[in-house]
Amino acid sequence: MVKRRSIQEGDNVLLYLSRKNSYLVRAEKGKTFHTHRGYINFDDVIGCRFGVTTNSSLNVEFVALKPTLRDYIFKAQRKTQIMYPKDVALIVMFSGIGSGSRVVEAGTGAGALSAALAFYVKPNGRVYSYEIRSQFQEIARKNLTKAQLEDIVELKSKDITLGIDEENVDAIILDLATPWLVIPHAYSALTGSGSLVSFSPTIDQSVKTVEALEQRNFADIVTFECIMRRMQIVRGKTRPETLMTGHTGYITSARKALDRNDG
Amino acid sequence: MVKRRSIQEGDNVLLYLSRKNSYLVRAEKGKTFHTHRGYINFDDVIGCRFGVTTNSSLNVEFVALKPTLRDYIFKAQRKTQIMYPKDVALIVMFSGIGSGSRVVEAGTGAGALSAALAFYVKPNGRVYSYEIRSQFQEIARKNLTKAQLEDIVELKSKDITLGIDEENVDAIILDLATPWLVIPHAYSALTGSGSLVSFSPTIDQSVKTVEALEQRNFADIVTFECIMRRMQIVRGKTRPETLMTGHTGYITSARKALDRNDG
Amino acid sequence: MVKRRSIQEGDNVLLYLSRKNSYLVRAEKGKTFHTHRGYINFDDVIGCRFGVTTNSSLNVEFVALKPTLRDYIFKAQRKTQIMYPKDVALIVMFSGIGSGSRVVEAGTGAGALSAALAFYVKPNGRVYSYEIRSQFQEIARKNLTKAQLEDIVELKSKDITLGIDEENVDAIILDLATPWLVIPHAYSALTGSGSLVSFSPTIDQSVKTVEALEQRNFADIVTFECIMRRMQIVRGKTRPETLMTGHTGYITSARKALDRNDG
Amino acid sequence: MVKRRSIQEGDNVLLYLSRKNSYLVRAEKGKTFHTHRGYINFDDVIGCRFGVTTNSSLNVEFVALKPTLRDYIFKAQRKTQIMYPKDVALIVMFSGIGSGSRVVEAGTGAGALSAALAFYVKPNGRVYSYEIRSQFQEIARKNLTKAQLEDIVELKSKDITLGIDEENVDAIILDLATPWLVIPHAYSALTGSGSLVSFSPTIDQSVKTVEALEQRNFADIVTFECIMRRMQIVRGKTRPETLMTGHTGYITSARKALDRNDG
Repeated sequence: MVKRRSIQEGDNVLLYLSRKNSYLVRAEKGKTFHTHRGYINFDDVIGCRFGVTTNSSLNVEFVALKPTLRDYIFKAQRKTQIMYPKDVALIVMFSGIGSGSRVVEAGTGAGALSAALAFYVKPNGRVYSYEIRSQFQEIARKNLTKAQLEDIVELKSKDITLGIDEENVDAIILDLATPWLVIPHAYSALTGSGSLVSFSPTIDQSVKTVEALEQRNFADIVTFECIMRRMQIVRGKTRPETLMTGHTGYITSARKALDRNDG
Repeated sequence: MVKRRSIQEGDNVLLYLSRKNSYLVRAEKGKTFHTHRGYINFDDVIGCRFGVTTNSSLNVEFVALKPTLRDYIFKAQRKTQIMYPKDVALIVMFSGIGSGSRVVEAGTGAGALSAALAFYVKPNGRVYSYEIRSQFQEIARKNLTKAQLEDIVELKSKDITLGIDEENVDAIILDLATPWLVIPHAYSALTGSGSLVSFSPTIDQSVKTVEALEQRNFADIVTFECIMRRMQIVRGKTRPETLMTGHTGYITSARKALDRNDG
Repeated sequence: MVKRRSIQEGDNVLLYLSRKNSYLVRAEKGKTFHTHRGYINFDDVIGCRFGVTTNSSLNVEFVALKPTLRDYIFKAQRKTQIMYPKDVALIVMFSGIGSGSRVVEAGTGAGALSAALAFYVKPNGRVYSYEIRSQFQEIARKNLTKAQLEDIVELKSKDITLGIDEENVDAIILDLATPWLVIPHAYSALTGSGSLVSFSPTIDQSVKTVEALEQRNFADIVTFECIMRRMQIVRGKTRPETLMTGHTGYITSARKALDRNDG
Repeated sequence: MVKRRSIQEGDNVLLYLSRKNSYLVRAEKGKTFHTHRGYINFDDVIGCRFGVTTNSSLNVEFVALKPTLRDYIFKAQRKTQIMYPKDVALIVMFSGIGSGSRVVEAGTGAGALSAALAFYVKPNGRVYSYEIRSQFQEIARKNLTKAQLEDIVELKSKDITLGIDEENVDAIILDLATPWLVIPHAYSALTGSGSLVSFSPTIDQSVKTVEALEQRNFADIVTFECIMRRMQIVRGKTRPETLMTGHTGYITSARKALDRNDG
């Protein structure tokens, strides 16, 4: 028999009103959460099952959803360049990581991508996340703790372009301004056949990264972008949405081939 | 100390020549694998580490990579509609599943999506996969076994439009011709706040699915497509590739809100 | 010897500051035009050649460009659904019209598409433009007069779904809510092999239009959309722009095949 | 009263079977045209109106359409890089040309773009088309003659990177490997406010062209690409087509601002 999940004091809850208005909050007894459509009384949802509908003080319906990785990714990023779930999903897929993998990541930023990597390698995998901008470590730690993934990630206040401490890692994920400077270190740190995935907004960064990969012994090098197009689905009025995010970044993926004397 | 992975007899190996020419094979002592660029002697790679480069009988270099989920997905699908890694990645992300999740899927097909779901819920999660076309079960079982994920998936020879046996599942993934017929059963089988994700090639299927979701108590309903664009990266000649897959399908995602009397 | 164009009193001028800040105005002696970056004195540009740079009262540089069709299209549309130059360009190309063509159009709207059709059929062609919303006729007339194309267009205050007065026209262009209701009339009004081009924002409109075309004797029926992606071109930072218009509408094109007893 | 067009001996006819099977041929008395679906007897269509349906010797229906610019563009290009109607349409729109314009073009290639420019500037405009590869001139002349546009175009066997003979032209259209080398000459040859439009497959060409435009006094510089997506329209099965042309090229457009001492 599977246990039903009910909302406990201290649980994170996504108060969902609409696609553009949802709030990732912590349920606390006796407290309220205020929105432009009235306030929510947490006592109304604590003890109920996730998915329960609750009315605000202005009698507007909110659904108390259980936050998923996608919610943590979106809500984590207030002060940095946003990493979109579509890109996170493709980075994870092309990295080949799964439960138990050991992954190096840089830079940490607000920890959105770190959280995703941790989510997919848990419970026994590990993420080593490099960041030189010290102000981000606290933000990242907070976001990871919120998502209950802080035990999986080791936050490192180090410049990854100077070297990688770990060895024989399964994958290396780069989201920083100069990924090409990391490629030689990445080659050394990766296990044979391990994956490197790099995300860059500009074409020039991607070209330099691919060239650095070609200079080291990487195979299966591919660069692509993923354009996400939301649909407005209404019978008789169905069409792609008018405004869209036209570009986020290019993803470059490669796998380490061993050097001849290293097989 | 992390153990280095060396290729053992019986291991799956991806013999990589180029993006369009790679082969997912089983390494067997004393045997060879023939390609249009000469044959590979498995004895040359057994005992070496993954990532080793080996020469074919025609002296062409192949890299012996460790297959990742993406390889299993691509290579599994010879006789069915292809499910692309980009769509698998987004389905997984929007389903919210991770290690330990319990997931219902239909239809099984060749098992490509089943393998992906199993990969991300392992080691303690479970995938219940429905399929009415009995000829596919054997193919799916073979593909899951190849990917060493057969223990995670329960293949069910049943028509999911007639009902779902499981209860309180975390997510339901639909890739079949009439997803809207499954929505009422999916609502019952899902735990509160659980995710439903449906993949359909046509707009009309997506409209019917969204309408069925709106008629039951689903929240956060969204439909989108993901267009993947490969880049040709060569200094001075960089450009998107000329030919591309223009469309695979639309992904519809939603989350179960509880009915009023069910909270 | 080709005459150089100099700006005359009464000429239209595009005062260009940046892509998002340009103004289509009429040069009048002794007058000024005010912008958020200072005012322009028309006496500074009258008598100069088009392309001249002039400084505003705040010493900001504006270029006095000669307006092109594209400027008239963009600036004409304040109060209606915008028709984008990309779609106008494709509609014109697929309609097959050129200097001398006779074209029926509906609805007129603010006259942006009418202006484009008139521009390409001038000096001897003719555009018959139907519109039932009488408030638009005055706007359209004003915009056409501004573009000096009013002599080419006959504005008709009639419901085209009730019938088309003209015969043997070369092309019919539809940009209205129910194009499928016009198809039978369009078939009658078109010359043999004449083109019909319809623009619709939604998929459902396009499906109904294609079905109506198939029911009459149209050949070469095709529906497509054109996605325009602006690039940010800066050495080292080149990339597609972040925000884009994701969808404007679908274009359906077809050509009249004669009925058997009509060849 | 408008004269109906009937097919005369010597007329070009588009024998249309399907989108992928249509033939641009010359109707000649007593002759036949052979296809994989039987042959067409031209005597069956001569004297009939354009749009007539005729049966092949295998009783398959073909429609005898009047060729449009789009047909001439597509059919002209057997031996060169294809220029697509979508790009031609946008180049024409952004060039601002119309009936009466004087245009410089390079390179001529098979004359597809030349034909389009000639079509839109006729009857009194003129196209000066530069090409250094002499073998193309004969092909281009033949294609222009077929489209009855040869009087509008002056084919020049000259290297445009060495200079432009014409002065005060309204627009310059570039479709060659090194457009940036032409920009200084183009600036001199253009009238004030005249348009330059350049088409290039690669990003690097576009960057160099934009930089050259910025170094001379060009305003309103913009680079974009247009992605055309065909739809499969069938009730209940509507969807974008699976295979598409992912990329043809980038279009860069700009307008000449006069230098300070030249206004």
